[in-house]
Amino acid sequence: MRGAVLYGPRDVRFEEREAPKILKPTDAVIRMSATCVCGSDLWPYRGIQPVNGPSPMGHEYCGIVEEVGRAVTSVKPGQFVIGSFFASDNTCPHCKAGYQTSCEHREFVGDAQAPRLRVPLADGTLVATPDVPSDDLVPSMLTLSDVMGTGWFAARAANVKPGTTVAVVGDGAVGLLAVLSAKQMGAGRIIAMSRHAARQKLAREFGATDIVTERGDEGVGRIKELTKGIGADAVLECVGTQEAMMQAIRSARPGGSIGYVGVPHGVALDGQQLFFAHVNLHGGPAPVRQYLPQLIELVWNGKISPGKVFDLTLPLDQVAEAYRAMDERRAIKTLLRP
Amino acid sequence: MRGAVLYGPRDVRFEEREAPKILKPTDAVIRMSATCVCGSDLWPYRGIQPVNGPSPMGHEYCGIVEEVGRAVTSVKPGQFVIGSFFASDNTCPHCKAGYQTSCEHREFVGDAQAPRLRVPLADGTLVATPDVPSDDLVPSMLTLSDVMGTGWFAARAANVKPGTTVAVVGDGAVGLLAVLSAKQMGAGRIIAMSRHAARQKLAREFGATDIVTERGDEGVGRIKELTKGIGADAVLECVGTQEAMMQAIRSARPGGSIGYVGVPHGVALDGQQLFFAHVNLHGGPAPVRQYLPQLIELVWNGKISPGKVFDLTLPLDQVAEAYRAMDERRAIKTLLRP
Repeated sequence: MRGAVLYGPRDVRFEEREAPKILKPTDAVIRMSATCVCGSDLWPYRGIQPVNGPSPMGHEYCGIVEEVGRAVTSVKPGQFVIGSFFASDNTCPHCKAGYQTSCEHREFVGDAQAPRLRVPLADGTLVATPDVPSDDLVPSMLTLSDVMGTGWFAARAANVKPGTTVAVVGDGAVGLLAVLSAKQMGAGRIIAMSRHAARQKLAREFGATDIVTERGDEGVGRIKELTKGIGADAVLECVGTQEAMMQAIRSARPGGSIGYVGVPHGVALDGQQLFFAHVNLHGGPAPVRQYLPQLIELVWNGKISPGKVFDLTLPLDQVAEAYRAMDERRAIKTLLRP
Repeated sequence: MRGAVLYGPRDVRFEEREAPKILKPTDAVIRMSATCVCGSDLWPYRGIQPVNGPSPMGHEYCGIVEEVGRAVTSVKPGQFVIGSFFASDNTCPHCKAGYQTSCEHREFVGDAQAPRLRVPLADGTLVATPDVPSDDLVPSMLTLSDVMGTGWFAARAANVKPGTTVAVVGDGAVGLLAVLSAKQMGAGRIIAMSRHAARQKLAREFGATDIVTERGDEGVGRIKELTKGIGADAVLECVGTQEAMMQAIRSARPGGSIGYVGVPHGVALDGQQLFFAHVNLHGGPAPVRQYLPQLIELVWNGKISPGKVFDLTLPLDQVAEAYRAMDERRAIKTLLRP
């Protein structure tokens, strides 16, 4: 079997890897229907996060169950399933509290850019769709494995409710789907921060009511201007840099909330600044497992089409080009077909 | 009129200051019934926070209204009133959202260690008690000006509800009143972190069910041990140091909440560590104005006695000794009688 392997900065290869098989009775092996490249894959790709030797890549997946271990009872061969980038038992106290990405037995699923994948803790991790979805639904189903659930968590973490004024920092796939999530939760106003025409267009399609192209001080100033000097009730931080985080904190009103889901790289928060900002801060790896049943239903019934974030589709063996296109911001997100 | 003036590290003097008078139509002048020294006064007293020349001190107050400006309508001479350390108009959007300490027109009330005090924005700031309280109620009423409301905010910010497992970091007056607040809100279990016998005793009297004397890694380990490895649902951080903040963050379960009210000094939070801790973080200067009506009622009806945190009472002219006693941890909190 051939799959994606990252050797170092900007060096992704499609090469022979060991075929996955059942290692534990709780495992499943799935045949990939679609996988993709995540914004967070770009951190190691760009050399910002170190790579320790050749590393299989990919953590977003959906496909058909081929085989299950003898302890697996909730999914069976032939079903179309989706799972989170963190496998979870879905029974420990953290899972029960809705934080499956902090499961006591979590395992990162990190080799999904391949035609087949072993998923640990299959009962806790995988959720089957009502039937095998038609081909046009597959991209949207795939987003539920990470980006859509992550945007959803950003909005939940920031306590978005009907009428809330929301600002979204970041116009990558997660930021755009955070817009869609806020819209689904009834936000009254959604300000998307973006300076790219194609992304602005998609943001508007997903529910953005305002676009702010400025960044830093000017970006904060514009948000304040649009909210009569008050600041946003909820800010969804979908980048992970110091600039984005500070922009989020400074754009919220006192008592407002920041939902932050961009994996922080080089972010340090000054305690006193945070204290006087008076904001609520919540984030982390999104517990997408919690949202899978609800989001599958929304996609299945055509209520949301998060798959629109894929503006490039390539065969899996062109995975190197998939990374390049996203790195160079030629594509918002690249879908890969095995 | 003589009042407290801080000249530099450990140099508090009781000396002649200008007598307060009505400067704006929205002002009131009160005759102090009692004032006190705050844990946060110790930051400049200890030289950790710079002092720019001789500074009047004190931000906790209650007393009898002597005079009001012509625009003041909600309080009148003769009434016993309490106000927050930040004056607020109580009508701006931030006030209406319950964040009066971020009021668009807030003014710090910083010269309360004196027999008389000018309070700006009197209508928004001051709340009168049902009648002039008996002398034994005055210490409890005084705590509502800051420490009691601050402990209350810590518990609110950390989302304490009936049944919640709470840990409190810090055994100063605010930490002890955070215990009392959590108890009032129905917390199922309250773990107080303290290594001082007298403070442990008061913590238990206020509702603590467990005492942890360890700090740092060992303190976190004990909290985990007491919560079956899960961590606390809510941690109330009432110190403001890096060690206390990290202890709070690491003691919470994923999805748990930190209410932090210790003014941060030298605190820097690593974005990635915070991200993977998966906690909710909320804090800042407590909007004690929001809680005044409710807390006055609780004190008036004898439901709570937060005044027990005062274990030393001195005449106002001994304010220097009041600071010394708290600095040396001989007193939890010193009440000053003009």
